[in-house]
Amino acid sequence: MDTITTDADGDFTVARATREDVPDIVDLLRDDEIGAGREGVDLAPYLAAFDEVDVDPQQLLAIVRGEGGAAAGTLQLTFVPGLSRGGAKRLIVEGVRVQSSTRGSGLGAALMEWAQEQGRSRGATLVQLTSDKRRADAHRFYERLGYVATHEGFKLDL
Amino acid sequence: MDTITTDADGDFTVARATREDVPDIVDLLRDDEIGAGREGVDLAPYLAAFDEVDVDPQQLLAIVRGEGGAAAGTLQLTFVPGLSRGGAKRLIVEGVRVQSSTRGSGLGAALMEWAQEQGRSRGATLVQLTSDKRRADAHRFYERLGYVATHEGFKLDL
Repeated sequence: MDTITTDADGDFTVARATREDVPDIVDLLRDDEIGAGREGVDLAPYLAAFDEVDVDPQQLLAIVRGEGGAAAGTLQLTFVPGLSRGGAKRLIVEGVRVQSSTRGSGLGAALMEWAQEQGRSRGATLVQLTSDKRRADAHRFYERLGYVATHEGFKLDL
Repeated sequence: MDTITTDADGDFTVARATREDVPDIVDLLRDDEIGAGREGVDLAPYLAAFDEVDVDPQQLLAIVRGEGGAAAGTLQLTFVPGLSRGGAKRLIVEGVRVQSSTRGSGLGAALMEWAQEQGRSRGATLVQLTSDKRRADAHRFYERLGYVATHEGFKLDL
């Protein structure tokens, strides 16, 4: 468990999520204008997905909590070895959410810095993420942190 | 090993890459206007990266060969379980290359269809990839296959 200090009142802790954290993580995924219409009410598929994430050594699902224990954020890290770019290991970041009442406190930036440190500590030389083109605020946020939107992010339902 | 039939002369086979395929895969990564300046000559880091890919059950590095055995294409598949989108499993595609002399034969489309079938067979409901914004031809290719550039692809060197 790591401590994240921000401009908000009190410190936050970021920890590897456990099965008991799943309901709070689903609430965070739903606390979002795009995610709201995409997430379900039944927890069973989320718990099944959690079990797959949890046994995979290349996945790190994290949850952030405030001092009182309230859920404040989440993200999922995936470490991907690969041959391209000179055999570079990539850190892929997905499912970044910061609880709406906490936005603007610097928690998001501190959480991304924590994620990048996880990447560096495991030998990743590149971090990448995709963000829905409708999320203009998120794009400004990532650009402030130094991210560059060099790529188009394509998706296809299977 | 699967057979891919295209409009080009003869069939192609797509197979899980072995260590012996690494030099050909690196040549394919280098046979590219953007990749050319990014890939090295020393094979050692690529072999080390291959070993990490090969032991990871969520990775599938593939190589395509023509009937005479010549390397014709490569891509890397990563299967990522996750909580968002109702606990959806994603297939991430990286490092797609088709040998320049074979482009336009339908091999790329057949290879992507093969990749999508790998995803479906392992329960993925979404396939995603990022493509450098300078690759206008590649974007038209993915759009023809039904991919939609809904996301910005951000990257940051660590």
